[in-house]
Amino acid sequence: MNKKIKIGIVGYGNLGKGAELAVKENADMELVAIFTRRKPDLLNTNTNVVHISNILDFKDKIDVMILCGGSLMDLDEQGPMIAENFNTVDSFDNHGRIPEYFEKINNIASKNKNLSLISVGWDPGLFSLNRLLGQCVLPNGKDYTFWGEGLSQGHSDAIRRVNGVKYGVQYTVPVKEALEKVRNCEILDTPICSRHKRICYVVCEDNEDKDRIEKEIKTMPNYFAEYDTTVFFISEEEFNKNHNEMPHGGFVIRAGNTGLEHKQKMEFNLTLDSNPEFTSSVLVAYARAVYKMTLEGKIGAITIFDIPLGYLSHKSMEELRKELL
Amino acid sequence: MNKKIKIGIVGYGNLGKGAELAVKENADMELVAIFTRRKPDLLNTNTNVVHISNILDFKDKIDVMILCGGSLMDLDEQGPMIAENFNTVDSFDNHGRIPEYFEKINNIASKNKNLSLISVGWDPGLFSLNRLLGQCVLPNGKDYTFWGEGLSQGHSDAIRRVNGVKYGVQYTVPVKEALEKVRNCEILDTPICSRHKRICYVVCEDNEDKDRIEKEIKTMPNYFAEYDTTVFFISEEEFNKNHNEMPHGGFVIRAGNTGLEHKQKMEFNLTLDSNPEFTSSVLVAYARAVYKMTLEGKIGAITIFDIPLGYLSHKSMEELRKELL
Repeated sequence: MNKKIKIGIVGYGNLGKGAELAVKENADMELVAIFTRRKPDLLNTNTNVVHISNILDFKDKIDVMILCGGSLMDLDEQGPMIAENFNTVDSFDNHGRIPEYFEKINNIASKNKNLSLISVGWDPGLFSLNRLLGQCVLPNGKDYTFWGEGLSQGHSDAIRRVNGVKYGVQYTVPVKEALEKVRNCEILDTPICSRHKRICYVVCEDNEDKDRIEKEIKTMPNYFAEYDTTVFFISEEEFNKNHNEMPHGGFVIRAGNTGLEHKQKMEFNLTLDSNPEFTSSVLVAYARAVYKMTLEGKIGAITIFDIPLGYLSHKSMEELRKELL
Repeated sequence: MNKKIKIGIVGYGNLGKGAELAVKENADMELVAIFTRRKPDLLNTNTNVVHISNILDFKDKIDVMILCGGSLMDLDEQGPMIAENFNTVDSFDNHGRIPEYFEKINNIASKNKNLSLISVGWDPGLFSLNRLLGQCVLPNGKDYTFWGEGLSQGHSDAIRRVNGVKYGVQYTVPVKEALEKVRNCEILDTPICSRHKRICYVVCEDNEDKDRIEKEIKTMPNYFAEYDTTVFFISEEEFNKNHNEMPHGGFVIRAGNTGLEHKQKMEFNLTLDSNPEFTSSVLVAYARAVYKMTLEGKIGAITIFDIPLGYLSHKSMEELRKELL
């Protein structure tokens, strides 16, 4: 057997915990350590936990670092610092700032002869791949992304910022009729906000004015005002019982024509009980690809578009041709 | 503007006709010629048609040849011959013989410094990619491929070999209950034959015994005997009106678990009005990837697993990162 791929995880929020579980599902990998800004003793895990200030002690002991910082701020700061010293995989998901982040990481990683895969997960990530595939195979067509049903972290945070809200979650739900139209290759020119509904579950503090809270949520610009938004007030018990998971999913659909009149539809969809566990499973599979590409001398920053999919597998290309083509 | 990618098409059956249409949808490509074993005058097209015996006249005039031979026998014979002189893309789909075909093409293409992508289309092809992706992202899971609803060429041919059958087509239809179970992440251990139904439409010669024909079809081993098969006898008029298209499609579903108990489902599906036009659209997109890889000096045989998906696009990696991630 070959040597195992040595993995490090930076950050131990939902994503880091998911990555820890995912590494265990891959027999060709070994989790060397989790790096945290907290006191290492505080983490409830059997994995070796190291304070992030000691990360350089592991410079030659880890093949790929999986960056699981809990926020974009973490990645903005940690990404370049760690890419200077390690091969990395991250899920940087501020779509608008990807080119700038790519440049920064590319400079640092290239200079230090490391390889960094940025912005992988499911969106950006597998959804991006499918948008690309659709556009290339059916150039005469249109693609649509639907998100949900699923819990949106950003929108849940927005609800919780409203005065008088104790707990709150928001589920994004694709509008069924729009989804069916797209699946039937009808052209849909409506904006994203009319293709999704927003359902909110809110626990409010005692004696708060629910009408005011509902109005504040529904009129919040960018987050809710443009959407068909429903707010349900529930008890703390119900909240704890039914809203402590992080399901998500979505659809990428490319509908196009070939020849004179033939409709063709490509669809990729995900139904996820746990968004962070799935995202981290993608990160772990792509960590293997990064490792394989470093063996070939590849350096700098790359994205999911640069990676031959065979590199994701622990199997040889020969086995893949035989078993999976 | 860069120079256009010069494409040749070998064979002018359904696939070749589809490729001809697909090249027109791609502004960065130019169709130089169609090569045929028939008398060139007989082909009803505006494209330049050349007898296959003169193919070597085009040795430096074509960047990628798309092999659209009508049968496996064509590819077995043409594949190596053309790979000796050109970069090629083909849709070799005898799954069991892919390793052997790969070796043969790899030797010839490598020796002559050409690049050949074999076995691309949707299955093998995009479906293979999705099986791979599912296995790598969700190692603790199971994947299922369903084909249809769609016309199966091989099974239609089998029907037409039955004595007394004038015309016949066969549609493969996924069993809805099985598909729904898989989509709900239930484990299905039933074989492929119990997950698909076969619906046959037959026009028989005058005065033939329909009971005998139906029985011969339904008991044909490998093709129908193991399946829930229905045979409808229809008139020639109805046949010509309703059964002259080649729709197809299917589903690749990976259902797995992450962590302790979270169910995760990945699904890729296709709904195609025209199977040959879609398959040839895939071939054309991958011809671009082959061209880009030859510019980097890549030679030998490759499969869909070896290709970074960004190479499918006429856009630069920079544009892709900005627009599609």
